[in-house]
Amino acid sequence: MNRILFETDEVIDGVATFGGARAEHVMKVLHGEVGQTIRTGVLDGPVGTGEIVSAEGGDGAAPCRVSVRVNHCEESLAPWADLILAPPRPRVLKRLLPQLAAMGVGTIVLVGAKKVEKDFWGATLLREENYRPLLVDGLMQAGTSAVPRVEARRNFRRFVSDELDAMFPEGERVVAHPYGAAPWRDGGRGAEGRILLAVGPEGGWTDDEVSALEERGFRRRSLGRRILKTETAAVALLAKLNREDET
Amino acid sequence: MNRILFETDEVIDGVATFGGARAEHVMKVLHGEVGQTIRTGVLDGPVGTGEIVSAEGGDGAAPCRVSVRVNHCEESLAPWADLILAPPRPRVLKRLLPQLAAMGVGTIVLVGAKKVEKDFWGATLLREENYRPLLVDGLMQAGTSAVPRVEARRNFRRFVSDELDAMFPEGERVVAHPYGAAPWRDGGRGAEGRILLAVGPEGGWTDDEVSALEERGFRRRSLGRRILKTETAAVALLAKLNREDET
Repeated sequence: MNRILFETDEVIDGVATFGGARAEHVMKVLHGEVGQTIRTGVLDGPVGTGEIVSAEGGDGAAPCRVSVRVNHCEESLAPWADLILAPPRPRVLKRLLPQLAAMGVGTIVLVGAKKVEKDFWGATLLREENYRPLLVDGLMQAGTSAVPRVEARRNFRRFVSDELDAMFPEGERVVAHPYGAAPWRDGGRGAEGRILLAVGPEGGWTDDEVSALEERGFRRRSLGRRILKTETAAVALLAKLNREDET
Repeated sequence: MNRILFETDEVIDGVATFGGARAEHVMKVLHGEVGQTIRTGVLDGPVGTGEIVSAEGGDGAAPCRVSVRVNHCEESLAPWADLILAPPRPRVLKRLLPQLAAMGVGTIVLVGAKKVEKDFWGATLLREENYRPLLVDGLMQAGTSAVPRVEARRNFRRFVSDELDAMFPEGERVVAHPYGAAPWRDGGRGAEGRILLAVGPEGGWTDDEVSALEERGFRRRSLGRRILKTETAAVALLAKLNREDET
């Protein structure tokens, strides 16, 4: 955790009091003491610092409990990408969600591509109370506060034809596909603007799916001849497309 | 599995016979039948195709068992990068190793940076019989055959001063570090040649460690202001440094 994040209603009169994993981290990893300043923030809100005003536990069996007086006056880094993802198995998606949040993804649309396993759509992971903590973990790692929005659209074709343009009205569109891809050196990467990336299932997009995306202005990009798992490919493509660190 | 790989001594008179996870994959995912051709290869050897000459199981309780007559006459894609890694916890490294193998890493040196947890060095994962199958999984995913070499060097300083130059005599050197990094647009990425990447522990390299690497010609590169976990950062940096897909 590189920043402790709070829900809006956890901060009362400028003070947040918390236990659990966040307090454990403050006490055991940061060796929290009264007067110490730590990095804090509010989910979907501003970030800044918090001064520890009370600290309990950390030296043994007693549960950790911490209060901080917060001073949140900076804006968090904003998301720079959105992701259309044909989901891998829930066990894998569970590992991927914090990484996507940490890398700065804004909206994640889980779509029912042909090769997505049918029983995915019954996964308990699709409930907000189950996936939100994973996203928050990723944000606390990265030090940012904007919680990604997660949507599930089982009908890929209907999503692409009826909803995609309204949901993502602007920005460059890229589909991960190993065949017929434009070379990376071949321009196309504007200096600014949000990116919409589509990453297919294990086994890949079908030709129809790639065509449907291309009709909506997606450009094929490949990671080369090595075939990567969804998890690796999503992180790798986001890293290659990110321009924030290129200034 | 995008390619079924065999140990050299599994191929006898041009035929490989196998059970276990590989046979399960051939029978249940590829719906293997006699006469069918699948992608095969030999670990640290050539790759090509195999024609199924016998196929058992796949339709229920009987264990799967498959024989293929192989025709291996292509060279596998060669590794293009090496990695000096301050290892994360074994549980995380276990997930990372197949991804590193899939992405084309040749040698992985696990080094004892200051912030590496001391008990890492007793992990059973450091035994070849435990990590090798993870690397082979990554290769079968990627479709390549060169097994990464894994070395453990608990004394970081001694490794850097006494061994590094001999082990990696050539190629660009990059250290992942968020501070004082060279911008990515700022040249430095030659068109060819192997890359040596150094990725620090959760919590980062110490200043001394970064200096020691810089003295050996490593150039700082950052992934921006979001702080990523080792696992994400390693994949992200390899993706950004890979030039194979840029032609």
